[in-house]
Amino acid sequence: MTTMRLSDFDRAAAVTWADDQETANADVPKSWRVHGGPINGGVTVSVALNALSERHDREFGHPDPLVISAFFLAAADPGPMEIRTEVIRSGRSLSTGQASVWQAGANGIPTERLRAVATFANLGATPPDVLTVARPPHMPPPEECVPISDLPGYPHDEVEVMQHYDMRLDPDTTGGPGGRPSGLGQLRAWFRMRDEREPSALLLPLVVDAFPPIAWDLGVSGWVPTLELTVHVRARPAPGWLRVSISSANLAGGFVEEDAEVWDSSGRLVAQGRQLAKIITNLPTLPVGHGWVV
Amino acid sequence: MTTMRLSDFDRAAAVTWADDQETANADVPKSWRVHGGPINGGVTVSVALNALSERHDREFGHPDPLVISAFFLAAADPGPMEIRTEVIRSGRSLSTGQASVWQAGANGIPTERLRAVATFANLGATPPDVLTVARPPHMPPPEECVPISDLPGYPHDEVEVMQHYDMRLDPDTTGGPGGRPSGLGQLRAWFRMRDEREPSALLLPLVVDAFPPIAWDLGVSGWVPTLELTVHVRARPAPGWLRVSISSANLAGGFVEEDAEVWDSSGRLVAQGRQLAKIITNLPTLPVGHGWVV
Repeated sequence: MTTMRLSDFDRAAAVTWADDQETANADVPKSWRVHGGPINGGVTVSVALNALSERHDREFGHPDPLVISAFFLAAADPGPMEIRTEVIRSGRSLSTGQASVWQAGANGIPTERLRAVATFANLGATPPDVLTVARPPHMPPPEECVPISDLPGYPHDEVEVMQHYDMRLDPDTTGGPGGRPSGLGQLRAWFRMRDEREPSALLLPLVVDAFPPIAWDLGVSGWVPTLELTVHVRARPAPGWLRVSISSANLAGGFVEEDAEVWDSSGRLVAQGRQLAKIITNLPTLPVGHGWVV
Repeated sequence: MTTMRLSDFDRAAAVTWADDQETANADVPKSWRVHGGPINGGVTVSVALNALSERHDREFGHPDPLVISAFFLAAADPGPMEIRTEVIRSGRSLSTGQASVWQAGANGIPTERLRAVATFANLGATPPDVLTVARPPHMPPPEECVPISDLPGYPHDEVEVMQHYDMRLDPDTTGGPGGRPSGLGQLRAWFRMRDEREPSALLLPLVVDAFPPIAWDLGVSGWVPTLELTVHVRARPAPGWLRVSISSANLAGGFVEEDAEVWDSSGRLVAQGRQLAKIITNLPTLPVGHGWVV
């Protein structure tokens, strides 16, 4: 039983291929749910990406997502899902494909839950040159940060998907998840998989979408579903802890933008993510004096 | 001849619909070319978006792009192009669709040049609440900034598409376009259409992609083709000048990320764009002492 040796993540994102080699099937465990309902959106993205990665690796030798954009059409449930893939374009060093994730609804009728387009490459062949003005976030080491499972005010046990993650929050940025918003829209944390699966290019989009909504630190509570998520994967991450910095510059008109940067243990910026999410609750009560523009 | 009264932009992005109401046709003038070759990628995006906008307005009352992701598959030429649209999902306040832009290649065989997925809404119905920590860029008024047409070192006349724009660069950030890179990866400018067409939600993705590559300010020269562009359109812009701030945090591994923020004349952040582009030339000679990490 080799499947017994798969990590949590690889088991969730695993696909089997139909004879046409274009349609794949997955079966996501219930442990990836949020509040007993749909699965975390990043997991659906991971399933789509894993299918595309296998196909682009098989056909072109391009296993790594370089840039992906995913549109969330409807929340996905745990259980079986079908992934329909399409190769859009292929070149020597880059190829672009599309994946649609379908799942039967309550009425039994298949519904498209997510559509993703992504460009793949072989990031193992990427030149190591780095010219960047970005800096990894400053924060205390993991053992001096706050495990999200210990954070007062955060409903850790209700967000079942969190059992897969080891998140250590910078003590200065626990306000959003802890129900004491700073109004600054900032979160810094260490991240690794609880089963210590090492990070990979394929894991990074999940990491970008794994954290509590940054809108919570802007005083919004409740559900903040993602409409669209774009991730640039810039390198295969080195083994070990990832550092994640999440921020939002703009909550307006009922929508909020969320930016994420992911740094690996070697200090390299390995992923940048941006998403647009919808505010479902009413507007927040405003903390005063925290740099807000109303 | 009502078409004579269309603005430059609206004439470039105009589409006519086939009987199926799903396929549209456009014909982009040569004046939108770059260096006598392909047209500017933002124009191809605009054609795709305009077709989708018309369809989503007609079918759902959602004329405005809220978030768009476009993958550039091959450079597009001036002249006829076909836009194949698909409605992916529709709801009361949001609907999502896809547009593929096809054009015959040199061999006469149709080639997909661009694929875009976008979610549409009616931004006229957006609540006016704004909670943001973002601030518009500080720069001198337009009359004290540098028209890009007057900038020494910038090949204005060879970039034909620039004739459609009135760009006034902050004198402190002319280094990239002027061939004197600062190494900071920053550009601030005022923008309007030269024919004074007022900005609209549909125009903003063009604006995001209209400026010289930010990589030039990081010391890279030559062609920096976009692989993927994501734009969040957060409000219909007020009439008048737009302020645009462009930056890059990460040039690495042969690719560069470029971020853009667009502010309207009322001081509202109306669009955020991010793109991933490929560096075609060799790595730059490095200016020293400008915050680079090598």
